[in-house]
Amino acid sequence: MPRFCDPPLFSMERAATALLGVRCYGTHLNGYTWRRGRPCMWLGRRALTKPTYPGQLDNLAAGGIAVGLGVTETLVKECQEEACIPPALAAQARPVGTISYTYEDHRGIFPECQFVFDLELPEEFEPHVGDGEMQEFYLLGLDEVKDAIASGDFKPNCALVALDFLIRHGHLQPDHEPHYAELVEGLHRSR
Amino acid sequence: MPRFCDPPLFSMERAATALLGVRCYGTHLNGYTWRRGRPCMWLGRRALTKPTYPGQLDNLAAGGIAVGLGVTETLVKECQEEACIPPALAAQARPVGTISYTYEDHRGIFPECQFVFDLELPEEFEPHVGDGEMQEFYLLGLDEVKDAIASGDFKPNCALVALDFLIRHGHLQPDHEPHYAELVEGLHRSR
Repeated sequence: MPRFCDPPLFSMERAATALLGVRCYGTHLNGYTWRRGRPCMWLGRRALTKPTYPGQLDNLAAGGIAVGLGVTETLVKECQEEACIPPALAAQARPVGTISYTYEDHRGIFPECQFVFDLELPEEFEPHVGDGEMQEFYLLGLDEVKDAIASGDFKPNCALVALDFLIRHGHLQPDHEPHYAELVEGLHRSR
Repeated sequence: MPRFCDPPLFSMERAATALLGVRCYGTHLNGYTWRRGRPCMWLGRRALTKPTYPGQLDNLAAGGIAVGLGVTETLVKECQEEACIPPALAAQARPVGTISYTYEDHRGIFPECQFVFDLELPEEFEPHVGDGEMQEFYLLGLDEVKDAIASGDFKPNCALVALDFLIRHGHLQPDHEPHYAELVEGLHRSR
């Protein structure tokens, strides 16, 4: 399989990649903060006008990596466009790994790899709707995030990003979650 | 493939599992702290009397999960036995995921899954040799940990645990490490 670091052979319109099963790369942000000493996560709800997954829960900011843009550069751009997060704050986001998966729908096959970032936000920070890709933002406690993941209200790959956050930060316990090992492996499929 | 949560069909001596290719589970601890504001990691060097990987670098504490013991229970036990970490301190370790891999040597096939924990240690804490499985402990800066991973001085699966730590804590950058995505996927092979 070609790698992210391989020199590009040619470029194409992103919407066409699914016809060829080409792997796409993107960035997703877990934006988290504290309220009354409890950890909370900022989530967006996708606009009803989005062609894919309208009205579903999304991470605070996310977007595909276009030709010529770097990984962190894409994240900072999406943070500003989607959630009005100032670049100086977005640049403090920490890269924490990737999630990888493949899905299929009527449009084709979608192998994807998302570079994941965590950003701890000041308590007083509030995201605002930017370019209209999100309709609203919510601050949820982590138990509510777990419920949202289980409910199917999330855009599926965004649920994986939030699940990865819960695991990496110790909010799922290997002695209490029977499928802990399978959940971690399921977040990192290489094919 | 059977899962960690499946009810056991029977128990066997751990040394025999490689003959049957049975997946083994264990726990590994990333013990880290700060020196003059810089993050550092405690690593052990395995005793020369160990039958496997004698004299190689290891995580601060690690061990296989035996019949009847829980994941966290195993970690706390190994912390005390190998590095004299008091149970009350070891119990503060945070579960942060798993690494999964399969290797083969002259003894057989070893599919393994390690439950990974991070423990932030007080600056004044120093591990001590316990049951003699380790001969010495070192406190290394994270650049030195990177060099040790690249040098081959590590027991291989312990290098994966340390690499996973560096990635999760943002000490590798997706824009600077060309194989970032492949490194993350390589830490989580399900077969």
